[in-house]
Amino acid sequence: MIVLVHHLLCAASRAVRLQLSEKGVAFELRVERPWERRADFLRLNPAGDLPVLVEDENAVAGVLAALEYVEEIHADPPLLGRDPQQRAEVRRLLNWFLVKFEAEVTATVVGEKIGKRISNGGPPNSRAISAGRQNIHMHLDYVAWLMERRRWLAGEQMTLADIAAAAQLSVLDYAGEVPWAKHPEAKDWYARIKSRPAFRPLLAETLPGIPPPRHYTDLDF
Amino acid sequence: MIVLVHHLLCAASRAVRLQLSEKGVAFELRVERPWERRADFLRLNPAGDLPVLVEDENAVAGVLAALEYVEEIHADPPLLGRDPQQRAEVRRLLNWFLVKFEAEVTATVVGEKIGKRISNGGPPNSRAISAGRQNIHMHLDYVAWLMERRRWLAGEQMTLADIAAAAQLSVLDYAGEVPWAKHPEAKDWYARIKSRPAFRPLLAETLPGIPPPRHYTDLDF
Repeated sequence: MIVLVHHLLCAASRAVRLQLSEKGVAFELRVERPWERRADFLRLNPAGDLPVLVEDENAVAGVLAALEYVEEIHADPPLLGRDPQQRAEVRRLLNWFLVKFEAEVTATVVGEKIGKRISNGGPPNSRAISAGRQNIHMHLDYVAWLMERRRWLAGEQMTLADIAAAAQLSVLDYAGEVPWAKHPEAKDWYARIKSRPAFRPLLAETLPGIPPPRHYTDLDF
Repeated sequence: MIVLVHHLLCAASRAVRLQLSEKGVAFELRVERPWERRADFLRLNPAGDLPVLVEDENAVAGVLAALEYVEEIHADPPLLGRDPQQRAEVRRLLNWFLVKFEAEVTATVVGEKIGKRISNGGPPNSRAISAGRQNIHMHLDYVAWLMERRRWLAGEQMTLADIAAAAQLSVLDYAGEVPWAKHPEAKDWYARIKSRPAFRPLLAETLPGIPPPRHYTDLDF
């Protein structure tokens, strides 16, 4: 069985977890605290980041490799798009949400606010948090812009683009850091993806001593 | 014909250019200065970064989308690996060199030293340059570690992993910022990929007023 090495605060891990659930693939979760830089974990992924998929003797390291691997091995339903142009659009948005959004919003806001606390990483950098809180508005506006033109972020079908964006926003939402009231179009889109069965077990999980806000699991938030 | 929107200092653009050349795909180059944030360019790629491939009416934005698109449209020779495990390894290393190496080395060293000069971006941040100059040693050590175990970075065949790593190092080499003398194994690997015909036109190109060091085009550097 596939093992997903993950952490609940890691949006990239959430994306692969949601993808596996959407496809009905059975998997086991194994929690890793990547900041501990355990030798056994670094052998799985020398880059030291999450997620890693382990299947038999093979490790698939990193979110982009993992998402593509799962699409290749479990093709049904296709979540990457049905032709090269569509896949290019999904991959453009994967880069947007997994690299750009991660760096501009999640890594700063959640990394500074909760990540440092659970890893004993020192005091949070409040300037970084403020910058990330500003940056999220542009990203939520971009979701709204896409939603005016399409049914899902990359087109008419739900794809990994939606999963990656929802994974990021769900981590921020756990930290109470999504200004939903100012972004109703993004909220409507998130409500749709949040109500999918694949989301339920993920939203039910919590970090010891760091509960999410009450609206986090609520489908009418 | 495919148009590659690129900049000579952009390692990601170089990677796609080398991929197209290795496959013998005809393409035109169009130079973009992404820091100008031209409206026409942002319509092609709202993220505002390079490269972008344009074919007929379609734009493929971002290096990961572009590399995967070219593999899908021009499958021969395959540069992404021949089975799902191999492709996972190539994609792990693509993320390593195109995201991690870019952030830890190229964006700081070349971005501060030359990027700011050509974009009127203000004085270079010498602390960032020092940090990048330290970081490159770890990456060159990792190339050496892989070369002790494999013929090419991802295995027995040359793949996009080699192309992405060579693209990064060629940009740093243009700036005279690769400490080759301290890293003979990485140098041997780079000499092999640098001598491929696909590399020649790329190395022949220069930025006005910013010549590369003499060894940049030399196959016996």
